[in-house]
Amino acid sequence: MKRLSILGSTGSIGKSTLSIVEQFPQRYSVAALACGRNVDEAFAQAVRWHPKIVSMASEELAGELTARLRQTGVSEIHVVYGSEGTVACSTLPEADFVVSAIVGVAGLEATHAAILAGKPVGLANKECMVAAGEILTQAARRRNVPILPIDSEHNAVHQCMRVGAHSEVKTIWLTASGGPFRQAPLEQFESITPEQALKHPTWVMGRRITVDSATLLNKGLEVIEACRLFDVQPSQVRVTVHPQSTVHSLVEYVDGSILAQISVTDMRLPILYALAYPERPASSLTFDLATLRHLDFEEPDFARFPCLRLAFEAAEKGGAHCIALNAADEVAVEAFLERRIPFMGIPRTIEKVLASTPEAHPATIAEVLAADRETRQMARALLA
Amino acid sequence: MKRLSILGSTGSIGKSTLSIVEQFPQRYSVAALACGRNVDEAFAQAVRWHPKIVSMASEELAGELTARLRQTGVSEIHVVYGSEGTVACSTLPEADFVVSAIVGVAGLEATHAAILAGKPVGLANKECMVAAGEILTQAARRRNVPILPIDSEHNAVHQCMRVGAHSEVKTIWLTASGGPFRQAPLEQFESITPEQALKHPTWVMGRRITVDSATLLNKGLEVIEACRLFDVQPSQVRVTVHPQSTVHSLVEYVDGSILAQISVTDMRLPILYALAYPERPASSLTFDLATLRHLDFEEPDFARFPCLRLAFEAAEKGGAHCIALNAADEVAVEAFLERRIPFMGIPRTIEKVLASTPEAHPATIAEVLAADRETRQMARALLA
Repeated sequence: MKRLSILGSTGSIGKSTLSIVEQFPQRYSVAALACGRNVDEAFAQAVRWHPKIVSMASEELAGELTARLRQTGVSEIHVVYGSEGTVACSTLPEADFVVSAIVGVAGLEATHAAILAGKPVGLANKECMVAAGEILTQAARRRNVPILPIDSEHNAVHQCMRVGAHSEVKTIWLTASGGPFRQAPLEQFESITPEQALKHPTWVMGRRITVDSATLLNKGLEVIEACRLFDVQPSQVRVTVHPQSTVHSLVEYVDGSILAQISVTDMRLPILYALAYPERPASSLTFDLATLRHLDFEEPDFARFPCLRLAFEAAEKGGAHCIALNAADEVAVEAFLERRIPFMGIPRTIEKVLASTPEAHPATIAEVLAADRETRQMARALLA
Repeated sequence: MKRLSILGSTGSIGKSTLSIVEQFPQRYSVAALACGRNVDEAFAQAVRWHPKIVSMASEELAGELTARLRQTGVSEIHVVYGSEGTVACSTLPEADFVVSAIVGVAGLEATHAAILAGKPVGLANKECMVAAGEILTQAARRRNVPILPIDSEHNAVHQCMRVGAHSEVKTIWLTASGGPFRQAPLEQFESITPEQALKHPTWVMGRRITVDSATLLNKGLEVIEACRLFDVQPSQVRVTVHPQSTVHSLVEYVDGSILAQISVTDMRLPILYALAYPERPASSLTFDLATLRHLDFEEPDFARFPCLRLAFEAAEKGGAHCIALNAADEVAVEAFLERRIPFMGIPRTIEKVLASTPEAHPATIAEVLAADRETRQMARALLA
């Protein structure tokens, strides 16, 4: 029985993780739930899963949850709050496995603490690896702690990497749906509206990640994540546009063999893989290969998607440049959604911020968070 | 340094194996060459590779080769002949690895002897596994001898099987190019001529295997081979028609993940994989994923390709039925090429022979060869 600590349990990945626990009650139980501001959902999850502790975003929300639990006669659940509360969840001695699914750098400290506590991590948080990948993977290697990627691309790569030695990997091919503007003419890019950018062809996601999918910046973050997770050079990672989103990624070996992973587009599959690794429990998430008709692969157009080029450049420089790429993009996307800058203002803003970013390699999580704050200030000043 | 014994060195797979030895002189050398009737080629290979022994088809040919070697001043190569000569090659104490690439059941005895002698085998001979798969794999398991498939489909499966446990494999998907009549209307099948059947869209091969590719009997033999090599039930093997021949096969796991292997269509790749396993040496046989455009997958049509259905039925019954499928097909294809029966006479002949074949499981190679001879006689009598 694996006892899980789920950071971000009220979010989409958190809920999917709990649905896996529901499907496999002999395999998994819930030890800790780090929630955000949704007391209703936190309450329902606490009553359903009986974790040892639950963390809320603030003292007030924690008080509210405690009161509601008492009213229901549940008193054995410890309610904590804030970033310390999240760390308490991620380092809980009773937890065997931590699912890191808090969006943004907010999940960074708790994920780092989990690794330092020797807990295997299922990582659904992209920003953690982008901003602090060097720190996290170094800590994980030192403690021999596995970090299992919970997103379809890196999960696919993780699977394909099992078919050869690390030194035999030539290229990691990340697939990209291409976003809504894959076939739009370059001259229209300047006038793309927030409404257009928020219509993603295949996935329903948050606002920032949807815009990031339209600029391919999201794929750029995944390039950096792949470099850190799999300890490869940026020149070993390439992106291929695959609109069907059926092949989740591919790994090319030096002998010429390419391995690809294919499955339904359902996040429960990578979650189950990460939780059960190295086992594969039988699931109902099957893909009917007989329905497979056409698969297309195209090279991404760096002219229409400069964010992808910027991400590769940041990946090469590492450290502060990766932090800046992520932070500047978040600020720029916000400005785009508020109609303060055009669509192509996003890569222009990132490029300017990166040009002013020193080549540095923050060595602690505190330094990472400080660099993240500084970049945001710089980007905001630039856009003011 | 791995010292190779190559059975069938003057054939296509044999020559490709030698080109791999040429490319990797630090990795491989040649200990034994079992040739057929081509003395010129055997002589050239012997002079180039200095094996310890060479085997020819007959005493006369062996004498001819010996004389030519002496004339050239080469006296240290031992020349043997016949099936005993082939067995001497496959069991040579100095050989570390045996490449079994003699076409037909002729290679069976020597391949079995290699396994009994504890030598890892790279298997390019389909008929061995179809006719005596149960005997060969049992012997290999008992002696802990690896059998590495040297054909693109099973080699791909072997790679994809590394991404999970054997018990986690749900379905092995063998890809088929579909042959030249993939899209031909059913009513034309009866009148297909030998000339039409011998034009294969993607591979240049021998006459029987080209016709077998047109009837999909060849894919049927591969279904049986997959059952034996990977110890799975026929219900776990399925065929998907993939005209591009780029995905060489796929393995579907119980959790819903499907792994696929993609590469150039060059036999040197599976040969190198088998020779070097578990390592992957860098090769120039690279596949440019950027050139990948469309991949199509279709269900095979059992009405137009009854040979495929017959193969699945034989796979279920095993033993004598698999031997009969292979032997009856060889006789029927011969009759088709001589215009004695129509194209659809091939499956009709096989079906009749299978209906008269007892359910038996030959336990020795001698029994397998006897059953093979009996089936051929039965098929010939039927067609007379």
